[in-house]
Amino acid sequence: MPNLELAVREIAGEMRLRTDRGQVASYIPELARVSPQAFGLAVVDVEGNVAAAGDCDAPFSIQSISKVFTLTLALGKVGDRLWARVGREPSGSPFNSIVQLENERGIPRNPFINAGAIAVTDLILSGHQPREALGEILRFVRYLAGDQTITIDDAVAASEQRTGFRNRALANYMKSFGVLDNPVDFTLGVYFHHCAIAMSCRQLALAGRYLAQFGNNPSTGLPVIQPERARRINAIMLTCGHYDGSGEFAYRVGLPGKSGVGGGILVIAPGKASIAVWSPGLDKAGNSHLGRIALERLTKRMGWSVFAGQPIIGERP
Amino acid sequence: MPNLELAVREIAGEMRLRTDRGQVASYIPELARVSPQAFGLAVVDVEGNVAAAGDCDAPFSIQSISKVFTLTLALGKVGDRLWARVGREPSGSPFNSIVQLENERGIPRNPFINAGAIAVTDLILSGHQPREALGEILRFVRYLAGDQTITIDDAVAASEQRTGFRNRALANYMKSFGVLDNPVDFTLGVYFHHCAIAMSCRQLALAGRYLAQFGNNPSTGLPVIQPERARRINAIMLTCGHYDGSGEFAYRVGLPGKSGVGGGILVIAPGKASIAVWSPGLDKAGNSHLGRIALERLTKRMGWSVFAGQPIIGERP
Amino acid sequence: MPNLELAVREIAGEMRLRTDRGQVASYIPELARVSPQAFGLAVVDVEGNVAAAGDCDAPFSIQSISKVFTLTLALGKVGDRLWARVGREPSGSPFNSIVQLENERGIPRNPFINAGAIAVTDLILSGHQPREALGEILRFVRYLAGDQTITIDDAVAASEQRTGFRNRALANYMKSFGVLDNPVDFTLGVYFHHCAIAMSCRQLALAGRYLAQFGNNPSTGLPVIQPERARRINAIMLTCGHYDGSGEFAYRVGLPGKSGVGGGILVIAPGKASIAVWSPGLDKAGNSHLGRIALERLTKRMGWSVFAGQPIIGERP
Amino acid sequence: MPNLELAVREIAGEMRLRTDRGQVASYIPELARVSPQAFGLAVVDVEGNVAAAGDCDAPFSIQSISKVFTLTLALGKVGDRLWARVGREPSGSPFNSIVQLENERGIPRNPFINAGAIAVTDLILSGHQPREALGEILRFVRYLAGDQTITIDDAVAASEQRTGFRNRALANYMKSFGVLDNPVDFTLGVYFHHCAIAMSCRQLALAGRYLAQFGNNPSTGLPVIQPERARRINAIMLTCGHYDGSGEFAYRVGLPGKSGVGGGILVIAPGKASIAVWSPGLDKAGNSHLGRIALERLTKRMGWSVFAGQPIIGERP
Repeated sequence: MPNLELAVREIAGEMRLRTDRGQVASYIPELARVSPQAFGLAVVDVEGNVAAAGDCDAPFSIQSISKVFTLTLALGKVGDRLWARVGREPSGSPFNSIVQLENERGIPRNPFINAGAIAVTDLILSGHQPREALGEILRFVRYLAGDQTITIDDAVAASEQRTGFRNRALANYMKSFGVLDNPVDFTLGVYFHHCAIAMSCRQLALAGRYLAQFGNNPSTGLPVIQPERARRINAIMLTCGHYDGSGEFAYRVGLPGKSGVGGGILVIAPGKASIAVWSPGLDKAGNSHLGRIALERLTKRMGWSVFAGQPIIGERP
Repeated sequence: MPNLELAVREIAGEMRLRTDRGQVASYIPELARVSPQAFGLAVVDVEGNVAAAGDCDAPFSIQSISKVFTLTLALGKVGDRLWARVGREPSGSPFNSIVQLENERGIPRNPFINAGAIAVTDLILSGHQPREALGEILRFVRYLAGDQTITIDDAVAASEQRTGFRNRALANYMKSFGVLDNPVDFTLGVYFHHCAIAMSCRQLALAGRYLAQFGNNPSTGLPVIQPERARRINAIMLTCGHYDGSGEFAYRVGLPGKSGVGGGILVIAPGKASIAVWSPGLDKAGNSHLGRIALERLTKRMGWSVFAGQPIIGERP
Repeated sequence: MPNLELAVREIAGEMRLRTDRGQVASYIPELARVSPQAFGLAVVDVEGNVAAAGDCDAPFSIQSISKVFTLTLALGKVGDRLWARVGREPSGSPFNSIVQLENERGIPRNPFINAGAIAVTDLILSGHQPREALGEILRFVRYLAGDQTITIDDAVAASEQRTGFRNRALANYMKSFGVLDNPVDFTLGVYFHHCAIAMSCRQLALAGRYLAQFGNNPSTGLPVIQPERARRINAIMLTCGHYDGSGEFAYRVGLPGKSGVGGGILVIAPGKASIAVWSPGLDKAGNSHLGRIALERLTKRMGWSVFAGQPIIGERP
Repeated sequence: MPNLELAVREIAGEMRLRTDRGQVASYIPELARVSPQAFGLAVVDVEGNVAAAGDCDAPFSIQSISKVFTLTLALGKVGDRLWARVGREPSGSPFNSIVQLENERGIPRNPFINAGAIAVTDLILSGHQPREALGEILRFVRYLAGDQTITIDDAVAASEQRTGFRNRALANYMKSFGVLDNPVDFTLGVYFHHCAIAMSCRQLALAGRYLAQFGNNPSTGLPVIQPERARRINAIMLTCGHYDGSGEFAYRVGLPGKSGVGGGILVIAPGKASIAVWSPGLDKAGNSHLGRIALERLTKRMGWSVFAGQPIIGERP
């Protein structure tokens, strides 16, 4: 089997030297201040080995990656009732598209586009104060990562609160169809804040372990979610995790993943590893440019594509 | 490891008894004449074992499943130039939607919707007579299945020629953007005929082996296609193989698959098996109703979901 | 020339007896409380004659008809700069569609769909407090009608404030493209309130006179707006005044008009008369059912279609 | 009253000198060969006076203007049954858009977009050979113009037959919904040929007289169509006659009109005059650039806008 630690180190080294770094997201003012030179990579395999390199301990804004955790939490709370509020098909549209909502009576296509994640957040919030719901989400992420130091970056949350007009449009639009139960400002408040959770690659890879391990938290040995649900979240990550770049990511990387506009990507090699990468420069589809390239390298080298079946020995990296 | 033969036999038995059978496709008149009672299932694993049950040797119209074989053939002929004519993102639209073409200058979203498969057919045709191109496709399918008896059902092809107005619209539309090189009638002639290839579940499962086996034809030991390309075709099957029901199929079955309106589905468990199922009644998304249920049963029982990582021992079927 | 007073009386009489009355709008709760039996009609010709019948003096919520007055006011304030914020093409979509905004960078198709009227309201508001802008609009309408008793129905405005999620979505969406200058809540506050102006048919017909009289207010003899602008507002009313029922209205009635969800319609026979009709029951396109029928009768009888050229003598009503 | 002959002469003179001439249509190869320097203008008033200037006797390809004549002919043949096949709302889309058809079950929005005109042509064809239907259309146009020399430009028709892929897409698409009765090639054959009718401005203005004169052919004194239908065709010309530039034309010119990609525009001043202008250079919306400017000048000078009510004496051109 290929040497994981060596692979991680070499890939991080190669990425540090590249000059094509994409564009740092500017639509959330606070995010625009991050250096495009940052690059981090961390992998936790199912035996508990951790391989990490580069800026793997620098916290960054996980943004849409939080949608994976809120989906997991909401499924645990309301079960398959969730699917009455949100679909599970690729949207074929950008992350913040509103067109699809008009044609489908306010039901978002899947939980990983903004509208879908707002609907999921609304389900978590139900019957609670925003502060309580947010506390529950943060505790859940800390539990998954086994790290109580994870916090929310209030400056980023405030920045989005001030400028998130399109998300506000999406939420009001769904509200007009009765898809949201709570006051729009409450739901959006929780949404903006869980998107502003700051984590390092290491913390993120640790938090994702349950999806590589049949729904179990390896630190505690306790189930986070049923095995079938873990598989299904992986399936949705693969088909919908990168907005209208999901097909491309499946084609190139071949693993379930979820990207965030902060430049992070969480990737799951089912039964093998949980992987987190971070590089703030984005490609045209809004996904981390170097992040995707690094993942393509890593998957190929380790033979981890879900479409390969097993390590492809003898294929050159 | 679960007993494959027993699983196949039991699932086929269960399916034979079910009364919910979906609706047989009526839009191609010739297809409407098939009995909804038919059910066949065949699995070929990577060790060459074949398990088959029900109407597993009755030929049926493979229809859109042929898109997998034409994509493979075209990639072999023109390589990645193919991707200048067709994308690889889920469309989020029905199989015969034309809206997306208008918004994206005539480039189909992926090779598994009708427009995309017509564009791929046009690439195979280039510089040849329709008869030659069709001969090449048929020889290729026979080679993959290791079976020289496979033929085209001319009555089905003629039926589509007469009534395929929407495909004719799609082809002319792409032609208006310069996406097709050949005369529309030539390209459509080849397209309608390769959709009318008739195969049994057994033949189809045999033909799909190369996708489960890193691109190799196990009968000959020769490569059909590079391992990386086989992986990538699997990726596209997973994200795009069931039109606007692709997300649902990934969520429930968790394997790359391609369905046809004749009621067949070809499914790949990478590194494990090639699977073909047939039941003519379709669900609302145009995919075989019992076929999908049977596959869900089989994958779960065998632990073959690409999102599981390995057989999930102890989980009940 | 046909007798106007007789025509108005007879048409009102006929309408009172009809039992097909459409559906009273329910999406603004306060509007749902109006009786579907109400019917009013008032005509003011260019010589100053007033013919009115039925509930012609009962105030009703003018709703979208206010868009005619705010467009006039905004053109007077900012001139043709207005057209950088809003187009003047029919939308081919329902009044509250958001799809078109996504495809055209947040610029509404015309000032008579909700998004367009919100953008126009934002221009009137610019640099003022909502209360001041609203005061200016109300004074303008009173001046046009020559009636200082016209007021805003605060219960209706409050009802929309509470439930107007879709308008809030439209406004936030435009804001995300930079099409609105002011805080969304300010602009919407003014918008909801000017939609809640209550007027009778008589007041409304008087207020519309300037559009029938080359831009002049006949009470004062002073120009409200340049003749060319009056003509052009009429043109936009004809092509865009009834959302996706504009073509039908032009086809049947043949006059510029603007309908409101309160059941009112303001119609202009250029050079001849200003007409207001009110009947709260709406047809499927959201326009007053009996209102349109009454107008069709009246125009035909008076020979007022702009497409006829002159009274068509000898044609039977 | 302003002097018509002087106005026509002066406007033609001004247009000849302008250097902004738009782009000659290139998508039909044969049309691309016309000189952009051509400019013709002809007006026939209801008293029978003809004022003409520039290249007013040079024949050009009337293209989509033929849709006015085929609509008239079809209404005469099948009456209001026609409206089961085609709507009468502005489309808000380009002339050759197919998106709207998908969303509305193959029913075109109005008879003046390509899809709508193809559906109307199919109704005229019904039960006849293409040659007979085409003969009937040509005889009708000759009768309206009172000129037996009008012919079809076969080179233009053949050019469209070869390259009209998008129209072929539209026709097949409607056929798939059952909106066309005849074989697609028959209907398109007639369509391409009536679009290729060649007429001069003088002939075209003469042919349009019935729409300015309550449906009567002034040469014969006989009705072409009922007065109400003439009014209604004018209404559709105003709301739909210039594709997604219809609102702009109504706003600027204020008269019903129908443009063709050959650079011609037929315009009706109801009760006053029939006007034809020709200049081959098109604006971005596909309408004659100088043609529209000339019409704007002429209408303003003559006070002919339907939105003015009467000549606006004293307003400067």
